[in-house]
Amino acid sequence: MIDLRSDTVTKPTEKMRAAMASAEVGDDVYGEDPTVNRLEARAAEVFGREAAIFVPTGSMGNQIAMRLHTQPGTETICEARAHVLDWEMGTAAAFSGCQLRAVPAERGILTWGDIAPKISPKIYYKAQTSLIWLENTHNMAGGTVTPLAVMEEVWYGAQKAGLKTHLDGARVFNAAAALGEDVAVLTKGFDTVMFCLSKGLGAPVGSMLVGSRELTDRARVVRKALGGGMRQTGILAAAGLIALEEMPTRLSEDHAHARLLAETIAHHPHCKVGLEDVQTNIVFITIKTGKAAELVAGMKERGVLASAIGADSVRLVTHYDVSRADCVYAAKVMMELLD
Amino acid sequence: MIDLRSDTVTKPTEKMRAAMASAEVGDDVYGEDPTVNRLEARAAEVFGREAAIFVPTGSMGNQIAMRLHTQPGTETICEARAHVLDWEMGTAAAFSGCQLRAVPAERGILTWGDIAPKISPKIYYKAQTSLIWLENTHNMAGGTVTPLAVMEEVWYGAQKAGLKTHLDGARVFNAAAALGEDVAVLTKGFDTVMFCLSKGLGAPVGSMLVGSRELTDRARVVRKALGGGMRQTGILAAAGLIALEEMPTRLSEDHAHARLLAETIAHHPHCKVGLEDVQTNIVFITIKTGKAAELVAGMKERGVLASAIGADSVRLVTHYDVSRADCVYAAKVMMELLD
Amino acid sequence: MIDLRSDTVTKPTEKMRAAMASAEVGDDVYGEDPTVNRLEARAAEVFGREAAIFVPTGSMGNQIAMRLHTQPGTETICEARAHVLDWEMGTAAAFSGCQLRAVPAERGILTWGDIAPKISPKIYYKAQTSLIWLENTHNMAGGTVTPLAVMEEVWYGAQKAGLKTHLDGARVFNAAAALGEDVAVLTKGFDTVMFCLSKGLGAPVGSMLVGSRELTDRARVVRKALGGGMRQTGILAAAGLIALEEMPTRLSEDHAHARLLAETIAHHPHCKVGLEDVQTNIVFITIKTGKAAELVAGMKERGVLASAIGADSVRLVTHYDVSRADCVYAAKVMMELLD
Amino acid sequence: MIDLRSDTVTKPTEKMRAAMASAEVGDDVYGEDPTVNRLEARAAEVFGREAAIFVPTGSMGNQIAMRLHTQPGTETICEARAHVLDWEMGTAAAFSGCQLRAVPAERGILTWGDIAPKISPKIYYKAQTSLIWLENTHNMAGGTVTPLAVMEEVWYGAQKAGLKTHLDGARVFNAAAALGEDVAVLTKGFDTVMFCLSKGLGAPVGSMLVGSRELTDRARVVRKALGGGMRQTGILAAAGLIALEEMPTRLSEDHAHARLLAETIAHHPHCKVGLEDVQTNIVFITIKTGKAAELVAGMKERGVLASAIGADSVRLVTHYDVSRADCVYAAKVMMELLD
Repeated sequence: MIDLRSDTVTKPTEKMRAAMASAEVGDDVYGEDPTVNRLEARAAEVFGREAAIFVPTGSMGNQIAMRLHTQPGTETICEARAHVLDWEMGTAAAFSGCQLRAVPAERGILTWGDIAPKISPKIYYKAQTSLIWLENTHNMAGGTVTPLAVMEEVWYGAQKAGLKTHLDGARVFNAAAALGEDVAVLTKGFDTVMFCLSKGLGAPVGSMLVGSRELTDRARVVRKALGGGMRQTGILAAAGLIALEEMPTRLSEDHAHARLLAETIAHHPHCKVGLEDVQTNIVFITIKTGKAAELVAGMKERGVLASAIGADSVRLVTHYDVSRADCVYAAKVMMELLD
Repeated sequence: MIDLRSDTVTKPTEKMRAAMASAEVGDDVYGEDPTVNRLEARAAEVFGREAAIFVPTGSMGNQIAMRLHTQPGTETICEARAHVLDWEMGTAAAFSGCQLRAVPAERGILTWGDIAPKISPKIYYKAQTSLIWLENTHNMAGGTVTPLAVMEEVWYGAQKAGLKTHLDGARVFNAAAALGEDVAVLTKGFDTVMFCLSKGLGAPVGSMLVGSRELTDRARVVRKALGGGMRQTGILAAAGLIALEEMPTRLSEDHAHARLLAETIAHHPHCKVGLEDVQTNIVFITIKTGKAAELVAGMKERGVLASAIGADSVRLVTHYDVSRADCVYAAKVMMELLD
Repeated sequence: MIDLRSDTVTKPTEKMRAAMASAEVGDDVYGEDPTVNRLEARAAEVFGREAAIFVPTGSMGNQIAMRLHTQPGTETICEARAHVLDWEMGTAAAFSGCQLRAVPAERGILTWGDIAPKISPKIYYKAQTSLIWLENTHNMAGGTVTPLAVMEEVWYGAQKAGLKTHLDGARVFNAAAALGEDVAVLTKGFDTVMFCLSKGLGAPVGSMLVGSRELTDRARVVRKALGGGMRQTGILAAAGLIALEEMPTRLSEDHAHARLLAETIAHHPHCKVGLEDVQTNIVFITIKTGKAAELVAGMKERGVLASAIGADSVRLVTHYDVSRADCVYAAKVMMELLD
Repeated sequence: MIDLRSDTVTKPTEKMRAAMASAEVGDDVYGEDPTVNRLEARAAEVFGREAAIFVPTGSMGNQIAMRLHTQPGTETICEARAHVLDWEMGTAAAFSGCQLRAVPAERGILTWGDIAPKISPKIYYKAQTSLIWLENTHNMAGGTVTPLAVMEEVWYGAQKAGLKTHLDGARVFNAAAALGEDVAVLTKGFDTVMFCLSKGLGAPVGSMLVGSRELTDRARVVRKALGGGMRQTGILAAAGLIALEEMPTRLSEDHAHARLLAETIAHHPHCKVGLEDVQTNIVFITIKTGKAAELVAGMKERGVLASAIGADSVRLVTHYDVSRADCVYAAKVMMELLD
């Protein structure tokens, strides 16, 4: 099976497996797991921050940040198709009591111009804004990249307005690869950044939240509250270290594969592909006949897995476990089924 | 002062004051306040329902309904300018753990066609929709009225989809007056309806939540949890009974005054008024010069209170304490200041 | 009927009714109700604080304080029979996400010696203590009074430990009457104090939360969130002003009546009354036969209402609407039924 | 170092490491991880239930159960030293809005006789009981075991009262070993059971929640909400399978070691050990001199880690990574330091 449903399906490399098997471990609730400690130190270094904390999922990392930066009865401004709004189970409300103020933005790129009018005026009988939330790359907008200059304007505006900022950087290494920029530079103005060791970086389990020492110390409390205080976590951190060190450099390969898919399929008269939106490893294809589910079923029969998103849209995601040849084959299957 | 900021500013009539002074009271937490009991029975009757419960504010009535119909980590679909989203302090999130799914709709009139695509697909890792929330009249859309046929389609669709429906009917008597329809007919398909005795109906304090006996029994629990279990509430209910019996019939007067304001001001070249949107007692005026706050300040100096909503919009609301002559004067002041 | 179930059943005096009928009112959400403003200023003055805020119920006042002083996932230390634990619907958990750490204390009098060992050690993986909560008089312990010296020790200890303190002073005027001490002196070390205008003070509806300006400003936000932002609240505040000015001085009468009840009934061989616990207007009587519900039913038939608390305990509460003669009669009825 | 602080410190066995390195994995959010699926099926089988779900920690398993069985504003009855009350960060309140009703019980063994009087009477203005929560073995009571007959009475009583029951069975295999009873029999009356693969069973990370298919399906939703929806979880499940199959039979060894420790130290005149409380792998020792922290520090210097619990109590926990000889040595060290 060629699995293009998501980059969450990536399997650990042999090197990761070996590292897990021999990982030095300890009780991480007591802060005594040496492999976790090494990974957290290294992640902090890569992002140019004081500290980092390992979490079992990107959703947990995001929701910890939500709790750190908000109070119940306040609002977080996010893009209208943000993962935190659409794919995190309403946990902003259910755990942090925080209301999401969804703002539609072209290509998912939330600018200060989009944000500023949505900040609550200082009226006591109106829920106040506490947090600005960006997602880069933006998953449901098609892996689009928010440029550094746009983020700089947001950092500056938020700071002047006394608001916190968080980056859902589940795929921030994809953004960095696309922009040819260092992740530390790309994220330096956010109060916290969450990024995933799984997904494109290939670790089986795990994400990180990076920020100041004070924030990651508080994050440890919230992680425990959410049931994320695991014990001999070094097993997972061992794979995470390899993911962090070795995998970012190969992401541009995934991007090339996505572009190959997009450009091939764009030729088909029954498809519409926004080629300028294909900036990283995600391709959204509009099926003009509107039969996305049917197409996906047909592809599955021929060994290619993809996701139908709504009635007329198919999403393809490239990653480590999909080769160029796989993509050539997948595009061929899709073209034939669309004929 | 001619106060056109809101119909929340209405003061109790002499008859209400007399009724409050002589009200028979008891301990309402024990269900022993005869005046409250009479008001609740009467409200149920007017709305053709099993039962009703008195609450100190419309926001509390709404938030009780939110809790009754949702579970933490689910979603409520509401219009993008709904009171529950913009003016209830994020309490849907902070008390019920419920995420609001905001859907923009023309004139605030949410149709089944707007709603259906926003209902979550049945995927376990996606927050499920629990409740559909309508507001009639729609305050921030300018007191606009959702017609019966539109609501009937929503009731039908929601029932088929297994979803609950609530009406924020803070001003449902205004909708009824505008449509020439009975409130019982206008609201019969909702699981619960909240309406206000204050605002246009003139009571000093109080709103009602109506529905089945089972729901109002559960509402009593939630009201107590929110700190709304008052004791000798008959004082307030006495005014509420007069508001409910006597005030609805005079609302068309307020609507005529709003129209008078709108039509007069619409002539001014620096203003834009959507006359077709002025359907009840609320008038939104776009100030082309963009200096809404300045205009409102000038009006205040000349004895007229209005609300600036954003940079270029002024809201006027007519009610019991504003006469036709007051409106003529207010329009004159506004016209002169705009010159 | 002689109603000894609770002092919550008190009905407004004629003077209160007249004041309500003629009260000057405004929109209190906008801060424009002159009678509310007068009451809030007066309450602040009586308690020697910067500010006060009117709330519809004591429970709301308490729960606002809970939110002001705690964060989700922290603990509040309270006595094991505290009203906040037993009679506020789990709202500490449901609205503030706060865990109550219940500490049993003799006569409900929580001393620093009881509290100190229950404060969480500073371990990141343990919920931290945020708030110390006292109740004076203590309702379910029988209206018992916590002496000033005990509270002073708590204030001192809490301050040194960096913890906030709140007083559930629903009946703090009863405590003040019993101790012959001013409420301002009795409460001066608490961060916030809630007291009721209803109950012994006889207002139909309403309580107050007093504290610093900064805290009452934040309380206004939370009150709105809970649906307690009423409009022409001056109606209720007018009665509240009379309750605050005129009623405290007569509470010692209620205390004398309670003692009369207690001393009379204590003679009956089937009863046990802790006479030293009857310090204010509440009397708990242990029925040795264990048939409290039966006794209460018999009393009702003869015109006396009382509360059965558990299988073998009856609670009697004296108040404004119960005269000395009523108490003599009630005691006689009880004695006869117990024979 | 001989680590007797907790059985959470156990390190994975070589066999577990090998299994993790070669585990077949898939995306568990999609239900496609074969190793996870095998573990969940096997756990269900061992406990004689329809289904089971893997969770990263026991705390998450417990808190999922809390959410499944309660509604915000209800109460859960638990023992006064329960893990859910003392070591889960107030998450019952912060995530489920549920109030814990703590009931002290001798040796932590909560009987129906303890529970029944704490169930709320059916009064609408009182928070209702929703859930009964047991812990077996009981950690902070010293690893004490609740006998089957006691639990049977609780199951029967709860069912008659319409209440749900959950077992915090973090160490239920220790209880089973101590009682010589099958875990399926020991837990058959609970609606849900959480047990840990880490701790005594030695897996590096992971716990399970078992129950009906309907409940574990809903658990999957809550797990995702808490950020516990990991991806290639089969890595961890591979170790978990070995923990579940092979480790329970060796727990009696840990129990023998604990007894050895207890019986040795009990002889020291400065110690008090409740030998009848030492039923599994946990030993609490009261230090009559009250210098627990000092003692623990001294032990550490000589290569033995233990926990000071409060001022005068030391906890020792035996497990897979501690041999009989280690325990002999640890006891010797302790005795010498106490002299």
